[in-house]
Order: sequence, then structure tokens, then C-alpha cells
Amino acid sequence: MTSPSIGNLPPLSESLPSSEKITIGGDLEVPTRQISLTNGETLQVYDTSGPQGCDPLAGIPKRRTRWVENRVARGDSNFSQMHYARQGVITEEMRFIAIRENVEAEFVRDEVASGRAIIPANRCHTELEPMIIGRNFLVKINANIGNSAVSSSIAEEVDKLRWSIRWGADTVMDLSTGKDIHATREHIIRNSPVPIGTVPIYQALERVDGIAEDLNIDMFLEVLEEQAQQGVDYFTIHAGVRLAYVPLTAERVTGIVSRGGSIMAKWCLAHHEENFLYTHFEKICELMKEYDVSFSLGDGLRPGCIADANDEAQFGELQTLGELTQIAWKHDVQVMIEGPGHVPMHKIKENMDLQLEVCHEAPFYTLGPLVTDVAPGYDHITSAIGAAMIGWYGTAMLCYVTPKEHLGLPNAQDVKDGVIAYKNAAHAADLAKEHEGAQLWDDALSKARFEFRWEDQFNLAVDPETAREYHDETLPADGAKVAHFCSMCGPHFCSMKITEDVRRYAAEKGLAEEAALAAGMEEKRREFVETGGELYREGEA
Amino acid sequence: MTSPSIGNLPPLSESLPSSEKITIGGDLEVPTRQISLTNGETLQVYDTSGPQGCDPLAGIPKRRTRWVENRVARGDSNFSQMHYARQGVITEEMRFIAIRENVEAEFVRDEVASGRAIIPANRCHTELEPMIIGRNFLVKINANIGNSAVSSSIAEEVDKLRWSIRWGADTVMDLSTGKDIHATREHIIRNSPVPIGTVPIYQALERVDGIAEDLNIDMFLEVLEEQAQQGVDYFTIHAGVRLAYVPLTAERVTGIVSRGGSIMAKWCLAHHEENFLYTHFEKICELMKEYDVSFSLGDGLRPGCIADANDEAQFGELQTLGELTQIAWKHDVQVMIEGPGHVPMHKIKENMDLQLEVCHEAPFYTLGPLVTDVAPGYDHITSAIGAAMIGWYGTAMLCYVTPKEHLGLPNAQDVKDGVIAYKNAAHAADLAKEHEGAQLWDDALSKARFEFRWEDQFNLAVDPETAREYHDETLPADGAKVAHFCSMCGPHFCSMKITEDVRRYAAEKGLAEEAALAAGMEEKRREFVETGGELYREGEA
Repeated sequence: MTSPSIGNLPPLSESLPSSEKITIGGDLEVPTRQISLTNGETLQVYDTSGPQGCDPLAGIPKRRTRWVENRVARGDSNFSQMHYARQGVITEEMRFIAIRENVEAEFVRDEVASGRAIIPANRCHTELEPMIIGRNFLVKINANIGNSAVSSSIAEEVDKLRWSIRWGADTVMDLSTGKDIHATREHIIRNSPVPIGTVPIYQALERVDGIAEDLNIDMFLEVLEEQAQQGVDYFTIHAGVRLAYVPLTAERVTGIVSRGGSIMAKWCLAHHEENFLYTHFEKICELMKEYDVSFSLGDGLRPGCIADANDEAQFGELQTLGELTQIAWKHDVQVMIEGPGHVPMHKIKENMDLQLEVCHEAPFYTLGPLVTDVAPGYDHITSAIGAAMIGWYGTAMLCYVTPKEHLGLPNAQDVKDGVIAYKNAAHAADLAKEHEGAQLWDDALSKARFEFRWEDQFNLAVDPETAREYHDETLPADGAKVAHFCSMCGPHFCSMKITEDVRRYAAEKGLAEEAALAAGMEEKRREFVETGGELYREGEA
Repeated sequence: MTSPSIGNLPPLSESLPSSEKITIGGDLEVPTRQISLTNGETLQVYDTSGPQGCDPLAGIPKRRTRWVENRVARGDSNFSQMHYARQGVITEEMRFIAIRENVEAEFVRDEVASGRAIIPANRCHTELEPMIIGRNFLVKINANIGNSAVSSSIAEEVDKLRWSIRWGADTVMDLSTGKDIHATREHIIRNSPVPIGTVPIYQALERVDGIAEDLNIDMFLEVLEEQAQQGVDYFTIHAGVRLAYVPLTAERVTGIVSRGGSIMAKWCLAHHEENFLYTHFEKICELMKEYDVSFSLGDGLRPGCIADANDEAQFGELQTLGELTQIAWKHDVQVMIEGPGHVPMHKIKENMDLQLEVCHEAPFYTLGPLVTDVAPGYDHITSAIGAAMIGWYGTAMLCYVTPKEHLGLPNAQDVKDGVIAYKNAAHAADLAKEHEGAQLWDDALSKARFEFRWEDQFNLAVDPETAREYHDETLPADGAKVAHFCSMCGPHFCSMKITEDVRRYAAEKGLAEEAALAAGMEEKRREFVETGGELYREGEA
């Protein structure tokens, strides 16, 4: 396979053949991707890929400008979607999302008003195609990008953004910690149709030359303001790392593994004071509602290994995040809650249930969780297992993990592998939740598979290019694409082909006859079981 | 990464550095892999890789020859491990397994006697390192290999076997359908330390030139005898595809997707008679006990897509497999039950619970299940999700799926990717079942990770080579292997490093003091919650 490389992204038509980006919902111009099949049918799937072919220096079109200008013109001071929702107002963003998710706009408004869902949509991020995060909507996924002191450039990060959303990332977090942090973020936001999240403590720490002890609320608020003005849609804030919880991590196998969490823990211990993000939380709320930045309340004490899962430190912090949620809601500021991490399968549901209870149903946003620690290099898989499960249990957004987790910075292929593993996990969760319409996609692909429409099977796949390349590795000829067999079984040994014969046979014989026979035999079977009888009569051996 | 290629397998020391194959259990010579760490500690992990450096034409040493000869010499006629177990005999195989699984030999015997576990160990497969499949033991994985009319050679298949067991396959199925089917199998068995399974109907169909209607019990028994003499340890037999169930599949989205299932369905319809494998099941049992071949009762009507999961056809067949289990047990023939397939997450547990109930706790052996249909090219991931879950719920062995599933024959890289995805799923299931000792591995790796022992982190990984290569992509210098940071965060921004500082700080300040503080604050928190109070006092804003 040709490995993609950042700076050299293929056109959309190459990644997703037979797909067309169209818009629905009239002047709201809600994007969707329509896949055309060889049998004349079409399938529409959720589309995150954004406007194509724009100059990265100019950015993508600012579709929300008029919506926001109207609100500014009438003198609004709280721009939060929750604020509007609670006033009974259905915003353009809510109407857009209703079409995108195929639900009523009033339902969207109600979910946002109750805090069960959030619409991360900073009023300064006018390029946004609005989306919603909540467990009564499609499960979403987040991709992390960002440079560090060791590696990566601005151009690479914008390309990583585009690459992430091509494969289905619903939001993207810019976790840059290196130099050019402001300019990198500016370019990412101006080119992003999806919400952008950040962890502002990283930039704050840069400002104090990496000395955690020198952090304080005033300079932190300055950083928040700077980022809010740029249009960041949600902030990870580690306000739940309270002084009292820090010693609870000392006996852990892997201590504190969240960067933000460990910074705040260090600050707390150095000053022997309560976390300033906690004590000044309402000041942060005041700022966030001016821009409609959503909280992503960080789980700074999340477990970093199986041994530390579901411990006192983790659940203590979760309790605090629940308290903070209610304070944010007092200000109509939107909130989601971050979750682990590393958790064995039998302890995953407890996380979800407790989060819903103590955080008052605010959306959960989890990193994996990884269900084992033993597979560095494969943690997109170990975490997709946990992610699919917790998505089914009720998590609203899944933060991806790439194969490079624990080992290094992801390259383009890693970003794609991470996004696709998580797209699969999220879709599996939608299926398990019996989310309306989710199974249409599976049915279309399975029908194509059964009918040997190879081209359709490829084009309906999450990753058509890879599906096609794998097939062509053994059967490259064009003729094989219409053949009623594949390389696995060869031409005369295909179960699908045999099933076709069986169906034809059944049709000729008359299905009704078969069904009658089946009914008769079923009766016999029951009789047999009820009499507890032997399968064979005497003498049959 | 250097892609492995069949015919050019690297030595074990290259795939698994700092690992040494040792034997425990005295003259039983039970293999285990010992990983040496840089801090002087060692970890022993389950080892399937078998004898190294043997000439493929000569095969590997025949360690069971004496055990079996003794049984032949004393005139045994039923060689089944279940037969011995039920007579209260603890065989050498059971003693071997007891050491391998770290349990009492009597426990092994009891599990086999009850049918809750099987030891696939054909008396003609003397090269075998005995292993057990049952839900009260470590979860096992199977890798499928085998040529087809379109592709692959004998040498390639032996190499695929060796490659599969290097990464952890506990059993291997030879699914060859092409020419040289007998010779291919002979070479695989003579070189295999793990049980080999087959689907004999494939060879039977070759004998009747692909005309399913021409199959009959006599020629089928001949095929079984031939394969049993070679040493095949378990046979997939599709005796549950009863005539009455076939019409139940006509309205399915993907009909019958099992090759064996569709062959038998075709036979049933053509003759309008009951499946001859069902009507002559006891004849098959008679043959199997002479060699101790275990049944893997095939799920010929397993669902091939999400839409068809848990339907009447599938569960009807499962009921029949339960009836057949009891007949096999009458002959002391060992049985496991094959399971799906494609199943959405919320329908997985129902499969497991029903299987345990109607199949009287015979071990379940499932293919995945895949939790969505939309990801051809990534089905090792979509199925690892379902496999981990059903393993946790009680499945004893997980049949792997490679990235090539639905698309083509797997190459060496695909086999490795499939085995490793499943190794992770099986281990995750062991953790979730709180299987004794399972977490030692995770703890060792996490401790190495936390202490920046990079070499140990690599060497403890499921795939050390990949972990190391991913790390070195951004930080190739040897110095980075002992550095207290990695490329993700850079030298001054590492949460692990900060946590070290936090611990040191906590130690200096005295952990006791911190704990007291924590207790005090926890009390305050409770008080606060109980009084339903505000977080901040008046005036704090």
C-alpha cells in the first residue's frame, strides 16, 4: 500500500471513490456523503471531511458568520448554546444538527438544555460545521494532533487535521506543547470544520518556562482568553485534581499519567494549597460563556495501567467533576467529562454508571479505555475494545489512541489507523445502542458482499482504498471484481455461491413447502426434547 | 518495518529479544518463555512457539510417543482424554497442562471429565505439547491457515504455522481446499507443537469433484480415518445443519456463509433428506474415540452479517449441537462448539448464555464475532472487540480473523496481525475474568513504563520488535532508551517525570501527613455534600 505522508494528501475522490459530497437542509447546507452503488442505489453517510481544495493560508469558508453576528448585534452576553436552549431558543446550530442527526430540532434543544448533550461551538470559530456530543446521538470520536518540542511543524499539523477528518474524526484536539503554539492553533482553527479542543495548561506552562509552581489563575485566564478569541471550542480543565486526592496516587503502579493532572498535582503540593482551577472555577465559567467555550473537565487522575483502574483517586476526582458540572451549569456553560484510560473489561461499566450518576448525565468523553497494558504498538486495538464497550454503555465521544501510543508521535498512517479503529468502535456502539439508521450502512455493505458486487463492497467500506488493495493483492485482474468468488475459496468452492444455489433450489421447490417442512420438523424436535428421548431409534447405532 | 515474508522467518531471538525458552515440570518438560529484565527481575509467560531450528522435512521431536505407546500396549480402545478422566485417570497430558496452567492436575481431570474443557490430542499427533480449552483456564486463540485452488504452497503453509505459533496461536486449523491437501496436512502436523484442526468436508468434497450431492457417510468416514491417522486433533463437523433449518436462512441478508454449512445445506436440499452427518453421528463418534479426535461442532448456519445475528436458524442449530454433545459424551468423545460470526455487541452475551445452557457447558469456540460489517480490511479489529467480550463472558477459544477477511488469503503480516489482535483480546478476557496471575504481565510492563525502562517495556510487549521500531521512528539514538522522556512530550514535559517529582515531594513531606490531610478533606467533602452546600462561600464569586 502507498503510505500516505503528511504534506502530500491525496484528493478526496481517491480516498473515497464513488462518493460525492452533497448538502441537505436547504440554506443550512448540511454536509453529507453520498455513495453511489453499481445497482443504482445510493447510501448517505455522516460526513466530517469539510470543504475541499481550500488554500490553507486562507482557511475554509466562514459559514457561521451571519448567525453569530446577529447574536452580537442584539447584544447577547452569554453565547452558550445551553443558554439559548434553556431560554427555549432553537439556534441555527441546533437546526443544522437536527438535520445532520436525523432528529427533531426540539429534541436537540432539549438535550442541550438538560446538559445531556453539548454543542462545542465557540462564536469565534465561524468555520464550524456544528455537531453534537451526547449519548442520545451518534457516538463521536476525537483525534489528537499537535507538535511537541521534539518533532513536527505547523504545516504538518494542518495536514494531520485534514487527514483526521477525512477518515471521520468528529472533533480534533490540538495538544501542541512546542514552539509556535499560537500560530499552529490559529492555522488549525481557520481550517477546521470540526470543533477544536485544547488543554490550555500546556500553553500556560510554556509561559512560566515549565515551572509548574509559578502558575496562577490570572495568567491562566489570560491564556484562556487568548485561545477563546482564536475560536477554541472546548478546553480541557483539570479542576478536579484536588490537593486531597494527590497523596492517594502515591502507591499507584503508574502514579499520575495525565500531563495536566501531574502539573496541577505538582502545583498543589508545592504550594500546599487547593488547586487554583478549583478555587477560581467560577471565574473560568464567566470567561467561557462569553465565547461559548465548552468545558471538557479533565480526568487528571485517570489510571495509567490496569492495576490502578477504578481506584479512590480516580473516583474521588470524578465526584469533584460532578460538583463542578453543576457550577458550570449555573452559568449555562456546557460541560463534558473526561474519562479513562486503562481499565479491564469487567470494570468499564462501573465507570460509565458512576459518571452518569455523579455528573448528572453530562456527556462522558473517554480515552479508550485500553483493556490491557501488554501491547505497545497495538494500543489502537486494545483501546478500541474498551472504547466500543463504553460507547455502548453510554459514552458520547471516544478519544482515539494511535498505534504509537506510549511510544512516539503519530505519523499520517498512525493517525489514519487510530481514526479508523475508533470509527469502527463508535459505529459498533451505535449498532449496539440500536441507534436508528445505524444498521443501514452494514446492511448495504453485507448485501453488496453477498451479491458479489465487489466495487460496491469496497466503496461502502470505512476505508475503500485498503479494502481494494487487500483484494487485489491476490486477484488484481478487473474481471475478478465482477467474479462470483474470491481468492479465499477459489471459483468452485465459495459458500456465497453455494448459498445462491440453495436459494434458487429452495425457490424452485417452493419456499412454502420448505417452510411447512420446517414447521413440521420443529414440532417433531420439540416432541423429541419434551420426551427427553434418544436421537436414534434402537438398532441405528 | 521490515515486513516478514513466508519462507524467510527471522530467528526467535530476533522476534522476542531477551526471552529464553526454558522447560519446567521436570521430565514433563513443559515449555515456558522467560523474559529477563534490566532490573534483574524475570517474568515467565505462556509459550506456544515450539521447538526451534528443526528441519521441516524431519518434523519436530515426538514427545508423546512413550505416553501413547503405553496405552496401546495395555490394549486401550478408547483413547479419549475424557474417557481416562472419567475413569479417574490423570494422564501425562493432564499433568503437563496442570503445570502449564498453574493449577492442580486433579482440577484438569475433573474439568475434562465433566466436558467443561477438552484436551485436543490425537494419539497419532505425538509431536504435541498438550494444551487445554475450557473457560476455567486461560483463554486460547486459533489461527487458520491453508491453501486454496488460487494460491499458496506446502512450504508456505508450514511457515505460516510456525509464524502463527511464534506470536501465540494455541491451535491452528488447516483449511486447505486446493491440491496436495494430504501432503500439506502431513507436513503441518509433523511440525506442529499445537493441536491441528481441520474441516474434513473440504477434502470429502474434493473427492467427489465438488459435487455436494455425491457426498455420503461412507466416503466421509474414509476421509475422517485418513485424517485421524495423520494426527488431526479436532474435526469441524457440520452435523447441526438439519434439513428443517435450511429454509430458515432463505430470507437472510447473507444466507449461509459457512462453507461446510452451505455444502451440507445443498446436500440436504438435493436429497430432501436429513443431514447424513446428523443421522450417522454415532458412527463418527466410534471413529473419533479410537484416535481421540475432538469434535468441534460446526456452526454451519452462523450469521454472516449484523442483520442475521441471533436468528432462528442460528439458534435452532445451536440447540441441535447441544443434543449432539450429549451423544458424543456417551462415547466419551470430547466436544467443543463453534460460534459466530457477525454479532452486534448487545447480542453477544445472549449467544454465550444460550450456548452454556443448551450445550451443557461444553467449551465455546467462536469466530470473532465481528461487531460491525462496514470495515473490510480492519476485521481483525472489529472482531477483536467481539472476541474480547465473548471471551470475558466465557468463550474458551477465539478463532482469529485477519485484516484480509472477506478480501483474500492472508500473507505473513496478516497472520501476525490477526494472531496479535487475538492474543490481546484473549489476554484482556483473562484480565476481566480475574484469572489468577494474568495481571502479573500487565503490572511488569506498566512498572517498566513508569520507571522509563524502555528496553524492558519493549521486551515485555506482545510484539517487542514493533514496539521498538515505533519508538525509534522519532528517537532512534541509544541514549533515548534510558532517557526519562519520550518523543510524545519531550524532555521537560513528561507526566511520568512530573509524577516522579510528586512522589519525591510527597515522600519528603511525609506521606502520612498527606494521608491525614486527605482524610480530613474527605470528611469535609462529605460534610459539604451532606449539607447540600454551595462550593464557595458568599463573596468568593
